Amino acid sequence: MPVNLAPPQPDELLPVTGIQIGIASAGIKTPGRKDLTVMQLAAGSQVAGVFTQNRFCAAPVILCRQHLATTSPRALVINTGNANAGTGEDGLARAREVCTALAQELGCAPAAILPFSTGVIMEPLPADKICAALPQAVANSHENQWLAAAQAIMTTDIVAKGASLTLDIDGHTITVTGIAKGSGMIHPNMATMLGFIATDAAIAPAVLQRMVKAVADASFNSITVDGDTSTNDSLMLIASGATALPRIDDSNSHACAALQAAITTVAVRLAQAIVRDGEGATKFITINVEGGVSRDECRQAGYAIAHSPLVKTAFFASDPNLGRILAAIGYAGIDDLNVNRLQLWLDDVLVAENGGRATSYREQDGQRVMRQSDITIRVALHRGNANATIWTCDFSYDYVKINAEYRS
Amino acid sequence: MPVNLAPPQPDELLPVTGIQIGIASAGIKTPGRKDLTVMQLAAGSQVAGVFTQNRFCAAPVILCRQHLATTSPRALVINTGNANAGTGEDGLARAREVCTALAQELGCAPAAILPFSTGVIMEPLPADKICAALPQAVANSHENQWLAAAQAIMTTDIVAKGASLTLDIDGHTITVTGIAKGSGMIHPNMATMLGFIATDAAIAPAVLQRMVKAVADASFNSITVDGDTSTNDSLMLIASGATALPRIDDSNSHACAALQAAITTVAVRLAQAIVRDGEGATKFITINVEGGVSRDECRQAGYAIAHSPLVKTAFFASDPNLGRILAAIGYAGIDDLNVNRLQLWLDDVLVAENGGRATSYREQDGQRVMRQSDITIRVALHRGNANATIWTCDFSYDYVKINAEYRS
Repeated sequence: MPVNLAPPQPDELLPVTGIQIGIASAGIKTPGRKDLTVMQLAAGSQVAGVFTQNRFCAAPVILCRQHLATTSPRALVINTGNANAGTGEDGLARAREVCTALAQELGCAPAAILPFSTGVIMEPLPADKICAALPQAVANSHENQWLAAAQAIMTTDIVAKGASLTLDIDGHTITVTGIAKGSGMIHPNMATMLGFIATDAAIAPAVLQRMVKAVADASFNSITVDGDTSTNDSLMLIASGATALPRIDDSNSHACAALQAAITTVAVRLAQAIVRDGEGATKFITINVEGGVSRDECRQAGYAIAHSPLVKTAFFASDPNLGRILAAIGYAGIDDLNVNRLQLWLDDVLVAENGGRATSYREQDGQRVMRQSDITIRVALHRGNANATIWTCDFSYDYVKINAEYRS
Repeated sequence: MPVNLAPPQPDELLPVTGIQIGIASAGIKTPGRKDLTVMQLAAGSQVAGVFTQNRFCAAPVILCRQHLATTSPRALVINTGNANAGTGEDGLARAREVCTALAQELGCAPAAILPFSTGVIMEPLPADKICAALPQAVANSHENQWLAAAQAIMTTDIVAKGASLTLDIDGHTITVTGIAKGSGMIHPNMATMLGFIATDAAIAPAVLQRMVKAVADASFNSITVDGDTSTNDSLMLIASGATALPRIDDSNSHACAALQAAITTVAVRLAQAIVRDGEGATKFITINVEGGVSRDECRQAGYAIAHSPLVKTAFFASDPNLGRILAAIGYAGIDDLNVNRLQLWLDDVLVAENGGRATSYREQDGQRVMRQSDITIRVALHRGNANATIWTCDFSYDYVKINAEYRS
């Protein structure tokens, strides 16, 4: 079960003026399931994205990159049930078919459509089913459908993921709303992770592009469930520009920083929700690594801990077998690491220092923290001033069960 | 259960002249269990080793490195039940205590003792119990005790691991016998892996050192169970020099190559046995990556596949969800990989080419191979002439169970 995670309340996800969402059942994998989402953007909307770095990126990712470089997007089309990845030229043709059909429906160029797919890989995308359902999705479009979209993009997610907030910039109320889906295969350079965050502010294209990278780094690129990096990950940031607030560009660094902070807040909530709903997760683990020479080495140590199956199974068992954390830091690849200077805490309990167990450490204190469902691991490297935070979950019987049975 | 792996037969592990093995019960973790092994080496024996690259290496590893640089070893002392890792200065003192006690027993310098420990980490080594049991181990020493030693060094291993062979070099019969223990935490730069291989040939120190590195690369450094690298891994190669064959040095490249090949054969059998007895393993998987620009990139691709929890759970389920293998290759970090040129086979079944599923592929063929307990994945990168082989196992419910319960 998801770790301390509730789905968004019906009125929690605020509409973003200028963005219309339509949902349909295309019958891609499960008959009757709502599996198709169309997101129409008002004219003048700006979109920027970051995508998986997997060399085997999926057909829709290839097309998204091409289309974003070509023209301003008018609509996004998202299907669950099939990832259209590992499908070669045929997969590209099928993704193009969907874009063309939606473009005809909306009266725009096919390159103004951004396609997204998630689900099983190496199966042909049933483009005909999707195309047949597009008119229905377009017909039921309205602005207040973010929660329905959050549900329609799920794969093995148990809980729909969405977050929303408003902020005041120069007397204008700005809305930021986002949805995302996980839930296995979540790893730094993203994963079978789709995220869509929209605001009604207007943002200059160069600023929006910079912002989506910074937001991804602080959120989706700081989480991991199983270390696998998927073929389809995409985070899109959409600025509809529907408010009267003047367009945010580099001349307005105050507004820019405020908006980026708000978008990052939404993105971190979505990213954490993905981990809390990680496949089979029973614990949510925050790993703070501080005192590194660089942020990179802090992330390296954090990911070594987060990816270790031995660490993850120990957390599942609530067993303070904390030497496994030290071992993971030891093989993180920080060549000149002096392990005798390192300190390790579990929440407020000092566990290790001077190359071994802290003299003040008592097993019952470690045990108390390990029984919690939210746990913070803090590592002080005492080498410099950089730090990094990684969020992950434990590794349970159910992770194996879900992934051994996913296709059946 | 171990995958197609039987323990050595009682007479299978041949004695190596010049090497005496003694076993005792020190009661380190489980009362009555044989948990202590002493291996005495005839005068003139040469020893070379390779050790874990984990920065948090265990106290015995630190001492072994120091002692090997100081003097010729006279004996090895190996305990299971406690790894003496993550134990700081106190751990070093306890390991020294054991070395000193055995040195007194044998009448040699403490630096002539090489200590090895495996088991739980971050717990103080019960040096007093070990010291008390040393006389018993020394008293029952004889040459034909390799199988008993293979059993006495096990931790979560189910099956004892040993291999033995003889070869003829210039009319002399040379024996090579080795034992090893696994079984989780097995990964390239070794892992909670202890390996001891001995021969009665005489080998020049520089040749022996080169040989142990080459042997480790072709065997223990090409396997992985869970990607974790332990604090205690050690592979020792011992040449007692008890045969009449002249000492093998660089002037005798024929004998050198023949002996290295034999030792590699033993090492590969031990390394594969570790994988076959990987924690919770139900499948043994050989990953051949060919056509790479370098051996390193072939190993990178092989390890990306071998470490992917999604791939490993799919093999556990006998589910030909083979896109997961493509995805793993895609994130292996080969930046300029052209995925359209890559080919993927499961045994003799061509699965993928041209960036997607092969047109000849039929699900039932993939299913047939996936049901086997021994499976070969073959990846052709079509970029160059290098290749590499990695051996791994699947990821099952039992892996989680074993590692969630290991300390209890």
